[in-house]
Amino acid sequence: MAKIGFIGLGHMGGPMAANLVKAGHSVTVYDVTPVSLSGVKVAASLAELIKDVDYVVSMLPAGAHVREVYLGDKGLLAHAPKAITYMECSTIDVQTAKDIHAAVAQKGGVCVDAPVSGGTASAAAGTLTFMVGGSDEAFATVKPILEAMGKKIFHAGAAGCGQMAKICNNMLLGISMIGVCEAFNLGKALGLEPQAFFDICKEASGQCWSLTQYCPAPGILPHTPANKNYEPGFMAKMMLKDLNLAEDAAESVTAATPLGDKARDLYQAFCDAGGQDKDFSGIIEWLQRQ
Amino acid sequence: MAKIGFIGLGHMGGPMAANLVKAGHSVTVYDVTPVSLSGVKVAASLAELIKDVDYVVSMLPAGAHVREVYLGDKGLLAHAPKAITYMECSTIDVQTAKDIHAAVAQKGGVCVDAPVSGGTASAAAGTLTFMVGGSDEAFATVKPILEAMGKKIFHAGAAGCGQMAKICNNMLLGISMIGVCEAFNLGKALGLEPQAFFDICKEASGQCWSLTQYCPAPGILPHTPANKNYEPGFMAKMMLKDLNLAEDAAESVTAATPLGDKARDLYQAFCDAGGQDKDFSGIIEWLQRQ
Repeated sequence: MAKIGFIGLGHMGGPMAANLVKAGHSVTVYDVTPVSLSGVKVAASLAELIKDVDYVVSMLPAGAHVREVYLGDKGLLAHAPKAITYMECSTIDVQTAKDIHAAVAQKGGVCVDAPVSGGTASAAAGTLTFMVGGSDEAFATVKPILEAMGKKIFHAGAAGCGQMAKICNNMLLGISMIGVCEAFNLGKALGLEPQAFFDICKEASGQCWSLTQYCPAPGILPHTPANKNYEPGFMAKMMLKDLNLAEDAAESVTAATPLGDKARDLYQAFCDAGGQDKDFSGIIEWLQRQ
Repeated sequence: MAKIGFIGLGHMGGPMAANLVKAGHSVTVYDVTPVSLSGVKVAASLAELIKDVDYVVSMLPAGAHVREVYLGDKGLLAHAPKAITYMECSTIDVQTAKDIHAAVAQKGGVCVDAPVSGGTASAAAGTLTFMVGGSDEAFATVKPILEAMGKKIFHAGAAGCGQMAKICNNMLLGISMIGVCEAFNLGKALGLEPQAFFDICKEASGQCWSLTQYCPAPGILPHTPANKNYEPGFMAKMMLKDLNLAEDAAESVTAATPLGDKARDLYQAFCDAGGQDKDFSGIIEWLQRQ
């Protein structure tokens, strides 16, 4: 099995690293906060981590952290003793992803951007979806390792395409979720039973994942945050982060994303009103108060 | 088989009436414009139509036409010789639907509001979806007749609930379609292949009917308007009509529908720019020019 360095053991990274251990890999971990994960070696620095691994998986909060971890003076590339294969799984801006690809290539290493969808439950279950950007060879190299953490591994295209797919998908997710919330709220206010609307809409042209897999109205799908007081799940502040990435990306190429921008504004308002740590489907309650 | 009067033989009503004929019903039709449909009797007026039928199906452009046809001096209820069962299939505002229900009840008749989804292709194929509002008894009475024109017949609830379900579903459809268009446009501008995005998104949390059944990007699904220069299909002006109904309904109950309102504004601008008779998925091209 492979010798893998894992950086960023948060809500997502922790269970992902655990699944690599479970798959029999030799895992060395590094985080800025203390790590409590059995079966792993803990490195005291990135320089220490990188000296004895062939693969790196990173799962970090934002682009700035990724730049520091990869490109900083105390970072991975400054201390890598050889060519290593990097799987950068954070959700970040496309330009940073491309910069990491270029810097890794300069060192002779292999790189993919491989952001995930699926949330903490999927991370724990090893059923994440990976959207991978990089060469065909790089994709073939990383796929068996990603399969220890995910169920669907998609090759989205060249360097940066994983981030592009993630951003576009999640912009659409944010729009769809608010749309579903508005439809349920309007129907209920008019006198339509939520269950009747769900039964019809799931078979009709309004069908979407936010409705049929993650229904924001309580009492419809038993396993959803809607039935657990909107405990995450996928936090509203993370959806806001993704919508901000989408808006920035759209500005960088002057693409018109009017509903994406409006969805961003609505999640910003929901977060400002105290919803930031609630599940993103909890915006249904905030919309009812507007 | 039943004696049915059919009012409104347009793009939708024409093929719907033809399917009633095909099912063996005795069909008398009335329209303000000349009717060319074989196998039917043509009535010269609503008063003539209503005197010899047990059921009525109406499929009209808007609420004002429905009021005139049902409640006007020359209308159905003024001339109905007995209690008749009415299937009002137009997409109209909830209040007009409720008013028709009340007026029919006063005459001792049976009424359902039963708007459809599916467009002209489904009307021709007899595969429409009906969303029915009315009593359990009324639903049981009309279901066998609607089955000659549709595949899925849903009981949405009491009087008006068919219209509520249709309005909420189509508001969500309008939002989803624009969201899908924005996601494809942003991805393409960033450098993501449309086919790669489609393959990923249909398996991910952005999945929706507008993507997987009616993809607005050309070259993905062969049967869609996107591959026929956005010939309808479902015209943009009809989507605008439904979004206006949704906005009016939301105002009537002070429900917040910010994305529904924004989608309405975008379809208005698309129609104003000449897109009114194009398929509603054609808004993807208009968005590319913004």
